[in-house]
Amino acid sequence: MWVESVEHHCPAFQAAVELVGRRWNGAVLMAAELGATRYSEFLVAVPGISERLLAQRLRELEQAGVLIRSVVPSTPVQITYTLSEKGSELVDAVRPLIAWGERWLGEGAVAHG
Amino acid sequence: MWVESVEHHCPAFQAAVELVGRRWNGAVLMAAELGATRYSEFLVAVPGISERLLAQRLRELEQAGVLIRSVVPSTPVQITYTLSEKGSELVDAVRPLIAWGERWLGEGAVAHG
Repeated sequence: MWVESVEHHCPAFQAAVELVGRRWNGAVLMAAELGATRYSEFLVAVPGISERLLAQRLRELEQAGVLIRSVVPSTPVQITYTLSEKGSELVDAVRPLIAWGERWLGEGAVAHG
Repeated sequence: MWVESVEHHCPAFQAAVELVGRRWNGAVLMAAELGATRYSEFLVAVPGISERLLAQRLRELEQAGVLIRSVVPSTPVQITYTLSEKGSELVDAVRPLIAWGERWLGEGAVAHG
């Protein structure tokens, strides 16, 4: 019975974990969740990311359907990135793993082990 | 405010996601959760994994403290692998991500998109 279950869960989970596990993606998603919408805001919110990589990650996350890119018709035109429903649910789905990492792998994790 | 948060969460989350994202680790953990304890049971429970890789993954997961290796003093001696508290909490933490993957990336995910 459980053999079937493992096989069944595998491909979608692997794709999900690769999406959030790709370097910077988790941080970019959390920045969006926490209020960043413009390129310049993400650049400040994700310390250490390069301009080139941020542009690449925003495009990837848009293509994956987790971020929605909007063009605000102001002068000058503004581009914003906001979480889609899919992205918002991904952030929620990832929170328990963040909490687990902090508890078991973060600073002071030795105290729990 | 949120800039700080993103930075703070990063390293432990990245380590967590790499642990569960490494090929086969998720499946091996789910097999353990679903009742596999012996090497031969994991081999059946995780279709497609090679004997060499399974041995390697079991060792890695034991070293990461998520599986506990026990030697049962029978004749012949039996080796079992069971989830530690850390491992059990990891399985729980990963479930929402599995569900997200099934909903948004699994077969029929287009219907939701």
